Amino acid sequence: MDNGVEPAVTDESASRLEDEVRRALEQAKELQDAASSFIAKSSSEEQSLRQRAASLDSNLRRLRSSIESQLRNKLLDPQLSDKLEEELQKARCIMFDGDASSFFPLKPQGRFLKMFLGPINVRATRKDVQLKVKEEYNSYRDRTALLFLLFPAVLLVLRSWIWKGCMPAFPVQLYQAWLLFLYTGLALRENILRVNGSDIRPWWIYHHYSAMIMALVSLTWEIKGPHCARKQRGVQLFLEWAMMQGVAMLLQNRYQRQRLYTRIALGKAKRMDVVWGETAGVAGQLWLLCPILFILQGFEAYVGLSLLKTAFVGVASEWQVVFCGMILVFMAVGNFVNTVKTLMTKSRFKAKMKRTKSKAEMD
Amino acid sequence: MDNGVEPAVTDESASRLEDEVRRALEQAKELQDAASSFIAKSSSEEQSLRQRAASLDSNLRRLRSSIESQLRNKLLDPQLSDKLEEELQKARCIMFDGDASSFFPLKPQGRFLKMFLGPINVRATRKDVQLKVKEEYNSYRDRTALLFLLFPAVLLVLRSWIWKGCMPAFPVQLYQAWLLFLYTGLALRENILRVNGSDIRPWWIYHHYSAMIMALVSLTWEIKGPHCARKQRGVQLFLEWAMMQGVAMLLQNRYQRQRLYTRIALGKAKRMDVVWGETAGVAGQLWLLCPILFILQGFEAYVGLSLLKTAFVGVASEWQVVFCGMILVFMAVGNFVNTVKTLMTKSRFKAKMKRTKSKAEMD
Repeated sequence: MDNGVEPAVTDESASRLEDEVRRALEQAKELQDAASSFIAKSSSEEQSLRQRAASLDSNLRRLRSSIESQLRNKLLDPQLSDKLEEELQKARCIMFDGDASSFFPLKPQGRFLKMFLGPINVRATRKDVQLKVKEEYNSYRDRTALLFLLFPAVLLVLRSWIWKGCMPAFPVQLYQAWLLFLYTGLALRENILRVNGSDIRPWWIYHHYSAMIMALVSLTWEIKGPHCARKQRGVQLFLEWAMMQGVAMLLQNRYQRQRLYTRIALGKAKRMDVVWGETAGVAGQLWLLCPILFILQGFEAYVGLSLLKTAFVGVASEWQVVFCGMILVFMAVGNFVNTVKTLMTKSRFKAKMKRTKSKAEMD
Repeated sequence: MDNGVEPAVTDESASRLEDEVRRALEQAKELQDAASSFIAKSSSEEQSLRQRAASLDSNLRRLRSSIESQLRNKLLDPQLSDKLEEELQKARCIMFDGDASSFFPLKPQGRFLKMFLGPINVRATRKDVQLKVKEEYNSYRDRTALLFLLFPAVLLVLRSWIWKGCMPAFPVQLYQAWLLFLYTGLALRENILRVNGSDIRPWWIYHHYSAMIMALVSLTWEIKGPHCARKQRGVQLFLEWAMMQGVAMLLQNRYQRQRLYTRIALGKAKRMDVVWGETAGVAGQLWLLCPILFILQGFEAYVGLSLLKTAFVGVASEWQVVFCGMILVFMAVGNFVNTVKTLMTKSRFKAKMKRTKSKAEMD
């Protein structure tokens, strides 16, 4: 009897299975069609939004320049021009702060990202994802700033307490490898932020490229051997500078975040703005931050020049010493120039704000 | 008279400007609304496609396992089971090869990408972009394979012709820095390919992580000094191995591409499959490739063991030598195991194909 029943059961379950497989295959085809039509439809809609955004963008640019030229030729009342410029600014804020921002012409991704990642697109379409990227970048900087302070501090303390003036190579190289990794990560993230519409000044990205190269070169730098205490003079200076840098980074991060939130609240900034601390400042904290930044830059140049001196006096005449010295001086000068530029932009902006305000009061 | 006309012109152009600015502001608001509604609509449609894809995916899995279990319990005719499995395979191909593939559950991006890039999404929605990424990865590998062959060859030639057995540190370190950059790029790209649905074996990514670490460590490796010719014995072996690697990479790339195109044509592979050469082979070229791969792996282990020997005999007892030796042995063993595993999978697959074919002929 079992022999009679078994095949029937088998046939039934087999044909049920066959049906199910057939249905699944059909579902796969349907899903494929739905996906194709969705992608086609949404990419054509996206395309038209992009065109609208591009034409609006060029329109705003044209209006701004014609306001400026009419003002210059005295064809426009300054008060009216201020009002119009304010409205244009409002339009820009609406466009770049909201969902529309994803449809503006893509910034080219740059060679650095292409070199490491290939042609993949790292632009997020949705604003909330873009903001998450920005937030994560801020917290990444917070975390690294702490290590930036602690790592060299520990090395310096151990140097004077345990190693008696002569650091072993391994921990120093570990630190340099960490710096290389850190700066590569920062440079990649900042490039990604740029693609996502952040206004970060190009200099700060170049600054991180320089720091990457310096970290790489310093890895090959010999610090062992007979005159190690004298050879390590440069490393010691570098570590002290790194500690100061850590303190400054922590202060800047705090300041930047507060400032960014304030500016968002005031509707003055696109939220994707990254203003690497050293370039920015409005509030009272600037009077604390600015001197620290200038001292840091001075010290950076001093470390660079000391390295060059060490090399030319002949204590450590390896090319790495000369190279690192030159890069440090280059970075110090660039940092100084960019900080000053930002302060100047700021004071111009402030003066304008004052003018507008006093006019409004006069009216 | 001019004085009478001027204000009228000014007023007119000013009011036209005012109108235009007002209209631009309105356009900005409209664009913002259109963008918001587009994003909301398309993300809800995307969501529903994702759900359909996920349920279909689990359905296919369930069907496959129930076919297997019924076959095991002899409730299903083997011939029917082969047919059903073929249909399931077809459904999978439709899903993963076409536009629908973008809507399958995201593979988590992995810690490596997060470490370098933060939380940005590197998955391409459109299939053509995904394929562009894959193509670019292939051509990147072609380019690097050539350098992989040339760079160490030049170093070795210069070593015996000009440098008389003792290489200067700079070109060697330049080579090592290039390796570090190359392997970082490869590891990033392969992680990106994985996120985009490629089937690349995890081992080949781990392999590149190991190679990255080795390149970093070798940068700190001292090769100058008194016994430089003896100290550089390890470097010399390493360069020779790298040259062989370059030849093998070139062969593999050629072979892989051909194979991938054949497999795509046969509908057997998702086009995002990256089969890092050493793991794959179907055609006759495999009989050329396999011995080369095994010789390469043997030589890799030999270089690793020689480094360890150098370290323990005391010629160069730095930790870097021991570490690089161990990593090379580890990579050789892993490569060997993974190549053998792939060959076994292949022969099992081939046997099955044969069985199906001969059955079809019998019918």
